[in-house]
Amino acid sequence: MQRTLYVINPNRSGIVTQGIDAALKPLRVPGGPRIECLTSEDGPPGVQTQQDVDGAVMPLVRRCVALPADCAAVIIACFSDPGLHAVREAMAPRRVPVLGISECGLLTALTLGQRFGVIAILDTSIPRHLRAYGAMGILDRFAGERAIGLQVSELTDHALTLERMIDAGRHLVQHQGADVLVMGCAGMAGFRDALQDAVGVPVVEPTQAAVSMALGRALLGW
Amino acid sequence: MQRTLYVINPNRSGIVTQGIDAALKPLRVPGGPRIECLTSEDGPPGVQTQQDVDGAVMPLVRRCVALPADCAAVIIACFSDPGLHAVREAMAPRRVPVLGISECGLLTALTLGQRFGVIAILDTSIPRHLRAYGAMGILDRFAGERAIGLQVSELTDHALTLERMIDAGRHLVQHQGADVLVMGCAGMAGFRDALQDAVGVPVVEPTQAAVSMALGRALLGW
Amino acid sequence: MQRTLYVINPNRSGIVTQGIDAALKPLRVPGGPRIECLTSEDGPPGVQTQQDVDGAVMPLVRRCVALPADCAAVIIACFSDPGLHAVREAMAPRRVPVLGISECGLLTALTLGQRFGVIAILDTSIPRHLRAYGAMGILDRFAGERAIGLQVSELTDHALTLERMIDAGRHLVQHQGADVLVMGCAGMAGFRDALQDAVGVPVVEPTQAAVSMALGRALLGW
Amino acid sequence: MQRTLYVINPNRSGIVTQGIDAALKPLRVPGGPRIECLTSEDGPPGVQTQQDVDGAVMPLVRRCVALPADCAAVIIACFSDPGLHAVREAMAPRRVPVLGISECGLLTALTLGQRFGVIAILDTSIPRHLRAYGAMGILDRFAGERAIGLQVSELTDHALTLERMIDAGRHLVQHQGADVLVMGCAGMAGFRDALQDAVGVPVVEPTQAAVSMALGRALLGW
Amino acid sequence: MQRTLYVINPNRSGIVTQGIDAALKPLRVPGGPRIECLTSEDGPPGVQTQQDVDGAVMPLVRRCVALPADCAAVIIACFSDPGLHAVREAMAPRRVPVLGISECGLLTALTLGQRFGVIAILDTSIPRHLRAYGAMGILDRFAGERAIGLQVSELTDHALTLERMIDAGRHLVQHQGADVLVMGCAGMAGFRDALQDAVGVPVVEPTQAAVSMALGRALLGW
Amino acid sequence: MQRTLYVINPNRSGIVTQGIDAALKPLRVPGGPRIECLTSEDGPPGVQTQQDVDGAVMPLVRRCVALPADCAAVIIACFSDPGLHAVREAMAPRRVPVLGISECGLLTALTLGQRFGVIAILDTSIPRHLRAYGAMGILDRFAGERAIGLQVSELTDHALTLERMIDAGRHLVQHQGADVLVMGCAGMAGFRDALQDAVGVPVVEPTQAAVSMALGRALLGW
Repeated sequence: MQRTLYVINPNRSGIVTQGIDAALKPLRVPGGPRIECLTSEDGPPGVQTQQDVDGAVMPLVRRCVALPADCAAVIIACFSDPGLHAVREAMAPRRVPVLGISECGLLTALTLGQRFGVIAILDTSIPRHLRAYGAMGILDRFAGERAIGLQVSELTDHALTLERMIDAGRHLVQHQGADVLVMGCAGMAGFRDALQDAVGVPVVEPTQAAVSMALGRALLGW
Repeated sequence: MQRTLYVINPNRSGIVTQGIDAALKPLRVPGGPRIECLTSEDGPPGVQTQQDVDGAVMPLVRRCVALPADCAAVIIACFSDPGLHAVREAMAPRRVPVLGISECGLLTALTLGQRFGVIAILDTSIPRHLRAYGAMGILDRFAGERAIGLQVSELTDHALTLERMIDAGRHLVQHQGADVLVMGCAGMAGFRDALQDAVGVPVVEPTQAAVSMALGRALLGW
Repeated sequence: MQRTLYVINPNRSGIVTQGIDAALKPLRVPGGPRIECLTSEDGPPGVQTQQDVDGAVMPLVRRCVALPADCAAVIIACFSDPGLHAVREAMAPRRVPVLGISECGLLTALTLGQRFGVIAILDTSIPRHLRAYGAMGILDRFAGERAIGLQVSELTDHALTLERMIDAGRHLVQHQGADVLVMGCAGMAGFRDALQDAVGVPVVEPTQAAVSMALGRALLGW
Repeated sequence: MQRTLYVINPNRSGIVTQGIDAALKPLRVPGGPRIECLTSEDGPPGVQTQQDVDGAVMPLVRRCVALPADCAAVIIACFSDPGLHAVREAMAPRRVPVLGISECGLLTALTLGQRFGVIAILDTSIPRHLRAYGAMGILDRFAGERAIGLQVSELTDHALTLERMIDAGRHLVQHQGADVLVMGCAGMAGFRDALQDAVGVPVVEPTQAAVSMALGRALLGW
Repeated sequence: MQRTLYVINPNRSGIVTQGIDAALKPLRVPGGPRIECLTSEDGPPGVQTQQDVDGAVMPLVRRCVALPADCAAVIIACFSDPGLHAVREAMAPRRVPVLGISECGLLTALTLGQRFGVIAILDTSIPRHLRAYGAMGILDRFAGERAIGLQVSELTDHALTLERMIDAGRHLVQHQGADVLVMGCAGMAGFRDALQDAVGVPVVEPTQAAVSMALGRALLGW
Repeated sequence: MQRTLYVINPNRSGIVTQGIDAALKPLRVPGGPRIECLTSEDGPPGVQTQQDVDGAVMPLVRRCVALPADCAAVIIACFSDPGLHAVREAMAPRRVPVLGISECGLLTALTLGQRFGVIAILDTSIPRHLRAYGAMGILDRFAGERAIGLQVSELTDHALTLERMIDAGRHLVQHQGADVLVMGCAGMAGFRDALQDAVGVPVVEPTQAAVSMALGRALLGW
């Protein structure tokens, strides 16, 4: 039976899921696992508040528990890694690896630079992210985090979004000591190359990073 | 209008809530806020797994949002501090302080010793607790954590429970360097004095610690 | 017998003590302990240098040891927490809790934000404060500290002092990542509300924070 | 052109290289990159001392620089990660990712447990490993490290080696708080399953972990 | 004018001062500074409690300020480094370096091993020492600390004292991971060689370490 | 037999060695060890890249092993401390202390201020330095690091070099919180006094710091 990596977008935006799906094309190889991206129809329009994050957990658990037998790994595709530990616990009896894009994006960044900077969408997410970095024990490698300061409605303006990302990234590199950047959101893989070219340091797109790690883990069966 | 501190037990065990209520007697003073303890009728029988913790969050948020206008502070009475940040966010418009017993128990311990040890009920909770200590940034003060290794059904055997707590506490003090202990659960205030006498270092009962902090905060209005 | 919280100002400025006393009004409740503020007549005019801090310790110890039998807790009201551990040691036989305003102010801040900034009076105090944060093991939560750069004589100019505090606070929030501030001195409770309104993040007045914690601790008898 | 992951064993033991090669079988997929394992003919018999580690660097750099144009990633297959940063620097103009098995094994462990333990071959390697964990900034997640205490000549006794690994692993789990283990050497993949079954926590074989991460990275072209 | 390093024993035990003086013989060279050891006639019999430490500060400051013009450096010879920062502040106008034996002993240990263990006299000193290691920011290098558990009156039994030091040292090395030890007291240089031979890792005698550092600093004039 | 401290410049620039030699004059005292500075004829012109650092190690080891019997200590005079641990290992049988100028410069700085800043020559060295600070476990004391941004050919312009050092130093002090600076290179002792005067905080010249520490260590025979 062919095995499948399930990438779950905890929000209900199909457009975000499509962006994720497109970004994973290079990781689909003959002989490797299928990669299927799912939208959380009953999720919030976007995961922004702490309540969005926490409210997404139990629906995610239920969704994952119901995944078919071909499930080789689960990837939670939201930079707040909602439910990462609850889903791990729920999938443990099936020995399915569960990875979060925040965790994997950050760990990947640790192989690409000495101090990571993070580009967030919202200022209000930064304290939550900092708690996660502390829980991960990686604050000694943290250079800083900056939000792009756009309303959700403005994110559809791609030129503006990229410009703000470049501004944030340059500040992190030039003034806060970052030598690798992590994009602190799930649906912006399309900006990675342009951002990396503009800032001059490696940029990690966290969903790609997580699915990349999941691919090997699924093959190993860990 | 008299103001009230609402202490919410996220599990549905009325016996646990009664134990909490009894433990808070010294903190009820004429002229001070009322202290009312609530049971989560729709909560799990006990908060043990990560899914129990995460599943408790949104019901807690809804319960807190619906608290009456006399609410002067909310105390979440479970050592995993379920929903601490989501409830804070939800209560921010009303400027109600929200405190968790884990956070407050640990912070109180930092004033009573240099390295804290924690007595947990279950081994499986320890990684979750460690993530919380990392998120709080207090691992430099952490001596160790040990579980008492009892089934939930055995916790009704008070002599056995106390014996195991003393064993765990002594090990933390004598072999792991703890000079203050925190009881890693909500409903065991009745054991505090005996435990402290037996181990010879201060013991923090976290619900008392949290309501104690909430009392002052309610008076200050922060 | 009614019990008393003794708040000791280690400097000899009665005006500072009066300011402290006024700030504690909300914490005086009919059924709670009395709160009495004492001036150290033989203390320095202000605690500014390391020698001021260290010179204040033994007089404080002697003063505390001589406190009457109604003493329910001691609060050391200077942001350098002079003699905190010596007074604890001296009061241990009487089982009197001893709290410092720096320690309690910082611990309280950890419940109000993820990264704390501190507003100091003097630049020369910052290395001493940093040693204290390191000893407390909370540097992972530290955003930065800035001094207001005023001479002691200028502190009587309240408008100027507040203006400088707001400048320092805004810098800590906007450029150094603080989402909660601690006022790094004992006698400035009067500025708290205006400062908080101006900077838009919670502001901890450390003497209020410490007496608030002491109130609960005295009731519990820990 | 088909792309190749080059896994370089910095010692001259062909038997070790064969063991590595066999362990990578699950990671070879039809549409993925080739995986080729190389022995350092001019390397030491085993990398044991600091001089072995440092002496291995420049030959490794020269070897890597000479790798053919199909090189999609380099994996340095020694738990001391000799030359990791020098090879990265040397391969940067060709944009070839370079991964070390220690770094990748540890990062992978961070997704499988909260505190990692490491099973080393030699006691004398532990200070070197600790410097690496410090440089990586992951000591907050470190539970402990134990050496199996065997002479190199004894490592050919597989039953004895496994027994010692299980002893070390159990000690790390039961007495030092590890909930995930990393095998601190390159050529022992054959013991992984038996070790994991015996200790009851996930065990990371670092070469598999590193090649697994390299596979995704090669596909992404980062 | 010949310059002098003043080594000040903050307690009034002339025997301790004599032991210090004898230990410094190798550091007296014809063209180097004189080394003079002073007893604090008005100090405590031994520095054991926090009050002993804090009570020693201001007399030390006064003594140091009165040192003659030949003073090239001050070394505070007590493992609690009483008054280190106050004496530094007081001697700054004269540009005299001030070193503490705890700080210098620990920094020297960092050049001799990766994780230091400390042998203390009294259990009650360990929390104070831990605060100092935290203030120094070196806890990532800390393996553990053990007290020898002798009464002051028993320290005159040299065979017993050495035996206990060896027991403590061996435990730190074999069970807590220390690969360098620091003697946590000022007057025990006579045991260093025997202790080092017995435990098999380098042992730092802190007064020798501090005077050794002061010698070079005096020559440089920093 | 008179004993000798060997200071080895790992690069082949005799001019750098001469600068080092001149800077050590104050540390040469009658009755003390000789201090001899050696150039690595087969070293790189300057140690700039990671490959320069790693390529310098084995030649250094061979050079040190061949040092004559009068060798009392080895000092590696390059701020990347190339081969520090390999040379220590190689000299251990002869019980010769081996010190690196980065390690000793930083440890010395810890006695002169609470947060150190480092002035680097090249931006590309900063990640390598950060790994070293992490391995040393001293990042809690780290304020920041800035490169002077000059090409090697421009370093012969002393006025420009000093100006850039002062700019970097002032930025570290005024904007990043440093209260002590370390010069992150071996051959610039001549700028120390002017730099210190300009920035107003202590400045550590690392080769002087290391030879200063080695002097005492050689006398003690540790």
